[in-house]
Amino acid sequence: MVCSIEISEKPKLNDPILIEGLPGIGFVANIVALHLINELKAKRFAAIVSASFQDFAVTTETGGARSPVNELYYYKREDGGRDLIIWYGNTQALTTFGQYELCGKVLDLAQELGCRFVISIGGFKKDEVQPVPAIYSAATDQETMKEALDLGTKMMVGHIFGIAGLLVGMSRLRNVKGFALLVDTLGMYPDANATRYALTALGKYLNLNIDLSRVDATAEQTKKILESFGLVRNIAEEKKKEEQQMRWFI
Amino acid sequence: MVCSIEISEKPKLNDPILIEGLPGIGFVANIVALHLINELKAKRFAAIVSASFQDFAVTTETGGARSPVNELYYYKREDGGRDLIIWYGNTQALTTFGQYELCGKVLDLAQELGCRFVISIGGFKKDEVQPVPAIYSAATDQETMKEALDLGTKMMVGHIFGIAGLLVGMSRLRNVKGFALLVDTLGMYPDANATRYALTALGKYLNLNIDLSRVDATAEQTKKILESFGLVRNIAEEKKKEEQQMRWFI
Amino acid sequence: MVCSIEISEKPKLNDPILIEGLPGIGFVANIVALHLINELKAKRFAAIVSASFQDFAVTTETGGARSPVNELYYYKREDGGRDLIIWYGNTQALTTFGQYELCGKVLDLAQELGCRFVISIGGFKKDEVQPVPAIYSAATDQETMKEALDLGTKMMVGHIFGIAGLLVGMSRLRNVKGFALLVDTLGMYPDANATRYALTALGKYLNLNIDLSRVDATAEQTKKILESFGLVRNIAEEKKKEEQQMRWFI
Amino acid sequence: MVCSIEISEKPKLNDPILIEGLPGIGFVANIVALHLINELKAKRFAAIVSASFQDFAVTTETGGARSPVNELYYYKREDGGRDLIIWYGNTQALTTFGQYELCGKVLDLAQELGCRFVISIGGFKKDEVQPVPAIYSAATDQETMKEALDLGTKMMVGHIFGIAGLLVGMSRLRNVKGFALLVDTLGMYPDANATRYALTALGKYLNLNIDLSRVDATAEQTKKILESFGLVRNIAEEKKKEEQQMRWFI
Repeated sequence: MVCSIEISEKPKLNDPILIEGLPGIGFVANIVALHLINELKAKRFAAIVSASFQDFAVTTETGGARSPVNELYYYKREDGGRDLIIWYGNTQALTTFGQYELCGKVLDLAQELGCRFVISIGGFKKDEVQPVPAIYSAATDQETMKEALDLGTKMMVGHIFGIAGLLVGMSRLRNVKGFALLVDTLGMYPDANATRYALTALGKYLNLNIDLSRVDATAEQTKKILESFGLVRNIAEEKKKEEQQMRWFI
Repeated sequence: MVCSIEISEKPKLNDPILIEGLPGIGFVANIVALHLINELKAKRFAAIVSASFQDFAVTTETGGARSPVNELYYYKREDGGRDLIIWYGNTQALTTFGQYELCGKVLDLAQELGCRFVISIGGFKKDEVQPVPAIYSAATDQETMKEALDLGTKMMVGHIFGIAGLLVGMSRLRNVKGFALLVDTLGMYPDANATRYALTALGKYLNLNIDLSRVDATAEQTKKILESFGLVRNIAEEKKKEEQQMRWFI
Repeated sequence: MVCSIEISEKPKLNDPILIEGLPGIGFVANIVALHLINELKAKRFAAIVSASFQDFAVTTETGGARSPVNELYYYKREDGGRDLIIWYGNTQALTTFGQYELCGKVLDLAQELGCRFVISIGGFKKDEVQPVPAIYSAATDQETMKEALDLGTKMMVGHIFGIAGLLVGMSRLRNVKGFALLVDTLGMYPDANATRYALTALGKYLNLNIDLSRVDATAEQTKKILESFGLVRNIAEEKKKEEQQMRWFI
Repeated sequence: MVCSIEISEKPKLNDPILIEGLPGIGFVANIVALHLINELKAKRFAAIVSASFQDFAVTTETGGARSPVNELYYYKREDGGRDLIIWYGNTQALTTFGQYELCGKVLDLAQELGCRFVISIGGFKKDEVQPVPAIYSAATDQETMKEALDLGTKMMVGHIFGIAGLLVGMSRLRNVKGFALLVDTLGMYPDANATRYALTALGKYLNLNIDLSRVDATAEQTKKILESFGLVRNIAEEKKKEEQQMRWFI
């Protein structure tokens, strides 16, 4: 199987934008995605299982067994704006190889549905964060970069690890445009405050009014789900990605 | 090849239930499966070899060379009850990737044969176990969970590693129902006592009278097979799965 | 590609026997295969490259660049005996996964050419070896085992690692018969003496008169080839396979 | 996807030579390739993404997001000489498996375009290097070796790691001819001096006049690109490839 998508519905969408929201630093993307799904009552149309996910099941409070999974939701706008595809899940892939497979499969399907623009969300780990956190961006092209900067973001300098970076990088190679939004976060817990700023910037770009009053509840819901998957731990113990030895060798 | 199934017969089965019994904690599942095969005179119809199994051969007492392999057996009931597919083997896959492949291939074939329900068996490692061990369960859905609890099981809390968890989790994503049965065990040897309780709960669910008088012999047979594969060792040396560093990284 | 075979000729063979001779303990199998190729003037008909081989080239004395490769040779007997397929190479695959792929591909082709019998050769590492080394065997079935014991071999007890074990184990699952011949060796250098005893047993089984006068030269040739691939080193530094931590986990 | 090539144009080429120039020791090959592309105004016709590349994006000075990628360029000569295919990129594959896939895919496409000759470039790491560095070569066959020696190269002795070695080794197995050019380098930074000597030898072989006045600028450009990918570091910290434990095991 490697990476298989089960599609329950192929929605007809209007020039849709793909928004990536898998668990990552500060879980900002993950809360953003779940919040959009909840608030917009987005509809699930695809489930993705990868052989590069963790091989276990976790139990819910009522004895339910859950596997690692990624899901795609769609939201059709009635105001004539561009529709949304929301990429949500409880895990990223465990291996570099799996990340490429996963990202490639999702892009394949999104492009089939007419998608020509992606936005990936992420946290930017800092040791100290201001109450109003900075937001950084990187884009596939100069024109899109300008649009991202117009949202009040700063120019990202450095590496964007995981799906957030891969999605924008791979999109560029497919002539799909898009940008990454990275919000300052301590990264040690599902960060509701950073999420609010990400949602605000996102809403501004999408010209979409997103109610932020339930973000804390969504962050709490995210925390519960991810704790059951063992994903929320003392981040202080984690080696910073930047310090990891490069796997590429000469 | 990655993972290849050699099918010697495609049996016509009546709404069959897939029962997973690969080696795992306390080898409970493995003894359960072998006991069912022995007692029900279940018929072997498929052999599965995966490139993710260990690459060696082990010798039998008479100089026979044996490879790691998984097998599927079927049992057709004459009392009008649902037929059984029994998943037996001397190994799980070595890698996460291989586990998904293996589980996916078996589910593919089982579903092709009409299977819509799975039961995975496992041991639940405890430092101390009562003479009457507790049995835990987790299920794909609320209705099935209720059926599992009605067998006298408790609600499982935590992770279910390996094929036992993966099978129930993956089944749910395929709209196949089922549950996992996990029996308390010290996990340090093929546990005949835990197996008896697993078989009793299973027999109750299947409405099947299983003779338990030869369980000790089956446990001994299992021990012999697995020792030749190096699978029965001093478990005390093993790092507990729970303490393993999560392979997922942010 | 994973593992690709380039076939230059599909020989018509008479009930051929596949003889495996890749580098392994004491390089016994490797010298056996090269010796058979040299003495019988066997003809190369297939080359196999696997993505699981080492990714480099080594240079020959004249500046030639050589890659890791496996090759198949055939020898047609004129005395009405069964023809031979000789599996030779300068490496095994680096990973368990690659070993299965490699072995599966070779068996696929051999079976296509009518092969129903395999013989794998190996060294059996001992700390001390008698001038007349013991030979051990393991077989796919009782009848074949009897034939192997009739050659003066002892019954193998334990694990047979690598391609030597995998070939016999996988053959059994494909209803192909065969046995492994394992000769006592210190395993620290290409062992010409052990090779002579392997060739003698093999010749007896095949009813084939093999000239042993040039075995020392073949061992020297093998040493040269394998040294350039970095395969002949101080084996004393190697962790014994048996002491390796099992990769299978519960 | 594993390794996918996106072809924007299939050029008609005259008996083309494939020149490999991925990042490696001293980045000699990488500067050579970029210099050829710049000076010859070679045209990009294919982009290659592999699941075995690093899973991240890096940012450019203007906020652009870039992924690891390999590219193929072509140069049609107007003087009747053989055309060129230039293989350029900002990374090699992370794994042995990925290296084989990548090299196989590029060779497949090159052969489809009529290529029957390859040249791989590399640095040969030395602790001390003369102002006029030595150049070494290894070839697929004796005749080609003679041509390489006629360029003033010495015979290479030892291992050629990575794509530079793999390309020549794999080409030989496909009956494609070619040689590797390896220039002495300290290997600690993008080495413009070594590159000049590689380009001179290459120009001599190709009977092509290559302007060397901008090599320093190309080396600087290479340094900038690779630094953003984290590929230019203190090589002194690197374990020498030669000292790496062999991954092959008996």
